[in-house]
Amino acid sequence: MTNQTLILIQCRDAVGLVALIANTVAGHRLNIVTMREYVDEAANRFYVRIVCAGKAKSSEQLAEDLTHALPEGAIVTVNPPQQKKLAVLVTKEHHCLGDIIIRHFFDTLGAEICCVVGNYDDLSTFTKRFNIPFHHVSHEGKSKEQFEAEIADTLELYQPDYVVLAKFMRVLSPEFVIRYPGRIINIHHSFLPAFIGANPYKQAHARGVKLIGATAHFVTNDLDEGPIIAQDIKPVNHSHTVKDMIRAGKEVEKSVLSKALALIIEDRVIITGNKTVVFE
Amino acid sequence: MTNQTLILIQCRDAVGLVALIANTVAGHRLNIVTMREYVDEAANRFYVRIVCAGKAKSSEQLAEDLTHALPEGAIVTVNPPQQKKLAVLVTKEHHCLGDIIIRHFFDTLGAEICCVVGNYDDLSTFTKRFNIPFHHVSHEGKSKEQFEAEIADTLELYQPDYVVLAKFMRVLSPEFVIRYPGRIINIHHSFLPAFIGANPYKQAHARGVKLIGATAHFVTNDLDEGPIIAQDIKPVNHSHTVKDMIRAGKEVEKSVLSKALALIIEDRVIITGNKTVVFE
Amino acid sequence: MTNQTLILIQCRDAVGLVALIANTVAGHRLNIVTMREYVDEAANRFYVRIVCAGKAKSSEQLAEDLTHALPEGAIVTVNPPQQKKLAVLVTKEHHCLGDIIIRHFFDTLGAEICCVVGNYDDLSTFTKRFNIPFHHVSHEGKSKEQFEAEIADTLELYQPDYVVLAKFMRVLSPEFVIRYPGRIINIHHSFLPAFIGANPYKQAHARGVKLIGATAHFVTNDLDEGPIIAQDIKPVNHSHTVKDMIRAGKEVEKSVLSKALALIIEDRVIITGNKTVVFE
Amino acid sequence: MTNQTLILIQCRDAVGLVALIANTVAGHRLNIVTMREYVDEAANRFYVRIVCAGKAKSSEQLAEDLTHALPEGAIVTVNPPQQKKLAVLVTKEHHCLGDIIIRHFFDTLGAEICCVVGNYDDLSTFTKRFNIPFHHVSHEGKSKEQFEAEIADTLELYQPDYVVLAKFMRVLSPEFVIRYPGRIINIHHSFLPAFIGANPYKQAHARGVKLIGATAHFVTNDLDEGPIIAQDIKPVNHSHTVKDMIRAGKEVEKSVLSKALALIIEDRVIITGNKTVVFE
Repeated sequence: MTNQTLILIQCRDAVGLVALIANTVAGHRLNIVTMREYVDEAANRFYVRIVCAGKAKSSEQLAEDLTHALPEGAIVTVNPPQQKKLAVLVTKEHHCLGDIIIRHFFDTLGAEICCVVGNYDDLSTFTKRFNIPFHHVSHEGKSKEQFEAEIADTLELYQPDYVVLAKFMRVLSPEFVIRYPGRIINIHHSFLPAFIGANPYKQAHARGVKLIGATAHFVTNDLDEGPIIAQDIKPVNHSHTVKDMIRAGKEVEKSVLSKALALIIEDRVIITGNKTVVFE
Repeated sequence: MTNQTLILIQCRDAVGLVALIANTVAGHRLNIVTMREYVDEAANRFYVRIVCAGKAKSSEQLAEDLTHALPEGAIVTVNPPQQKKLAVLVTKEHHCLGDIIIRHFFDTLGAEICCVVGNYDDLSTFTKRFNIPFHHVSHEGKSKEQFEAEIADTLELYQPDYVVLAKFMRVLSPEFVIRYPGRIINIHHSFLPAFIGANPYKQAHARGVKLIGATAHFVTNDLDEGPIIAQDIKPVNHSHTVKDMIRAGKEVEKSVLSKALALIIEDRVIITGNKTVVFE
Repeated sequence: MTNQTLILIQCRDAVGLVALIANTVAGHRLNIVTMREYVDEAANRFYVRIVCAGKAKSSEQLAEDLTHALPEGAIVTVNPPQQKKLAVLVTKEHHCLGDIIIRHFFDTLGAEICCVVGNYDDLSTFTKRFNIPFHHVSHEGKSKEQFEAEIADTLELYQPDYVVLAKFMRVLSPEFVIRYPGRIINIHHSFLPAFIGANPYKQAHARGVKLIGATAHFVTNDLDEGPIIAQDIKPVNHSHTVKDMIRAGKEVEKSVLSKALALIIEDRVIITGNKTVVFE
Repeated sequence: MTNQTLILIQCRDAVGLVALIANTVAGHRLNIVTMREYVDEAANRFYVRIVCAGKAKSSEQLAEDLTHALPEGAIVTVNPPQQKKLAVLVTKEHHCLGDIIIRHFFDTLGAEICCVVGNYDDLSTFTKRFNIPFHHVSHEGKSKEQFEAEIADTLELYQPDYVVLAKFMRVLSPEFVIRYPGRIINIHHSFLPAFIGANPYKQAHARGVKLIGATAHFVTNDLDEGPIIAQDIKPVNHSHTVKDMIRAGKEVEKSVLSKALALIIEDRVIITGNKTVVFE
């Protein structure tokens, strides 16, 4: 994106917004290459992602001009920081972390992993092998408040743009979540139908499901709720044991989380209400 | 399958079953071309589907010999009836019925549609265009008992092998379901996550799901429960309206039901406990 | 789309096009709800599809104003005819025709099937059952020129917007194709890898492919070339016979052609060079 | 598989083979849990994969008894070595190697990576980080014969069960391939349609393909031919640049190669003629 200008805007919907924006952009002598726009009619809210050929002389001036032209309350971002910082929270499972770290190592993630925090230290050796700081913050013998305060303190050292729950198996409190509004990403398996309660894979196996799915989403209050970013499935059949289904679930969790992160890192995901707009 | 012998067996699991079966089959001078076998270890139950090259001289004798060789209680089927009869129950939606009838018309369904029964008569004209009997059995002004008794009486005329709920929007009572054990097939949309309550598509849209799924299953007691036969999904995105999502749901319902019926018609589906074994 | 205005534009790319367009639209007091835009940099060409809330007072005036504002040679369409007319060319295979006609019958195709033309009359009975004209134009004992002239004469009676080759097994000459530039749609199976020569399914089976695909595309000169509109695949495995693979191929051809037609009927497909832009 | 016995058999087809095998297995007091069988009728060849509950007292005796019972020339394997050794050949691209090594590190590959050989040393640092030997065998300034002799000498040190071409960009000679019959696995991208010649991604982009595929296969003579093990696709669209399509291709290559390796490592893949039987 070295010779491009990326513009993200959201505001209250109104007639003529595209004209206002396009005029302002044209005034800066930038040519719009791609424009993806969405109006959430239920929320009366307007979203646009614009890629222009050419670098804006001054991103600040362009942002200021756009803000001035648009309805009050417009949120305008011109050329968001390209090297985003991700903090990754883990427990013991490695499949998602492994995939993210390999991409990081080979410079295809498009973001920096500033730290990994685990409530167990099982993944410490692996993480350090890539010169990424690993912090072991145990939850044992601590109140949830204290545990989360320690995690927050650790994250504070790195000022991450996003917090990625890469199979972090502790439920976070609303108090913690509110610190990173729209910036915590979670991944979990999903089934058709959903299985409530303990050991969903065992239930899925007993019911003979033919698909195992995974959902990547932003975390709001409930760990498994919040705006969905990406979903996918893998086929399974009766010959799969519970263990095989878990393995299939891990494969799909890994690929869905990677896809969701790529979309976020490229500034293609916008939250509106309890859903996302994904300008893929 | 004109020059083949199809054998389906289920029984209590034991050491040496395959040998017993294979010896009996070899004794009838039949060559096993494909053999799919599954042991449900939780249920200690053995299932096998065998295709032999060549027609058995006597299907009855082969079935008798197999039954004699196997543990007590074995269920043996040799060359099940190839032209199965399907009764289709509908309400107003046409997408599933249309697909089934076209396949029937062009002789690619592999089964006969003996009748269509609708609690509305919206699909009557279409059905009759293909010379298939259509029975309008309204539920209005009747108790569920009476309504279901009328449907049962109608079906009685045709003695269907399977009852297909092709978007039949009335919940059937356990008393009705028990008349056709393992022989009623339903199709419904599915979501990741599941949305409980009214208007699931509206909920799915508000939540911004990225996939719409469908599940074909046998009906046991609960309309949306029972052993799953086939599942699939279609991708959707934020630009899809509720209406678009409903349309995507219909497409996937249609193709999943067709797939499930093809599997059943070819005797590839076996129910074990609350799941299916599908020898695809 | 009863209360919306659809605008399609293509022209030479230049700085400020979006601004020009948006200003003109705003001048007509229309609010842009969705805007999908694409610049083919290789061809220096600009494409946009705009949906506005509200009906334009005068589509003609809006089109004229847009044309006037844009670079010379711009192609502007405001509210293209919604009820497009499709002529369907067939040979003997019914799977694609069946699906299209059912959608037509239940009014979910979004277009009118004005006629079906077959070089065999196998599909005549089926077509007429739906009160759609069927013309049998045999190729036997005729030069290609004469055969195509007869088809062209038949189509002339109906003035179709699009000609759909729904498993029409005759190769059309460039002279025929040129009569319907960008308006002939074909469907064919595809393999990974491609199999050249006779009986590709037999080759695919011998090679043990794990996927069968289908491609819907516009016809240019070569029957199996031209801009791709939609593609999909179905999994197969070693236990599938050649016949099973053909069946799988038909299923995927049917669904891919339907998808391609839906996109075209909703004016979501634009041809640029030898490829399509699909504003899905 | 600690308490199971795995049996793989292939031989000339004949009536009664399953009976012979099942009797022999029953004679060893083993209970058949899963049996997957396939007859390649064109080749008149019989293949079976059997999983028995319980460990055979003597694998050798069981293999001997089976061989004795079966037609001459039968190939019988009882409990093949579970810890297979893989040698991985690479050039510069890391996506496939990275995925394999991570699985190796976390012990989910099911096999040992005995060495990595690269004709460039770009992936040396990464490989050694996991304590896996990396050999740089340059092709520069050498005849193909000499280059391949050096690779063969290197592999000789490790006696690998399989040679994995994880984006190894040199075409191997038939003389090299013959050293590892049915034991060299390759991965490459695939398109619908196929694009012959240089820069297939550029061609695919110019043609506007909607799918990017990948094929994992055994290497016979031609690098891109040989029995197919696994295939999959990823959707792309007009907004993807050539670079985006290459990225999508890498994702699908990575996941298809991993799937193929898992199948091979679990002894689920059998070569028959120019195709595979995959007992998934």
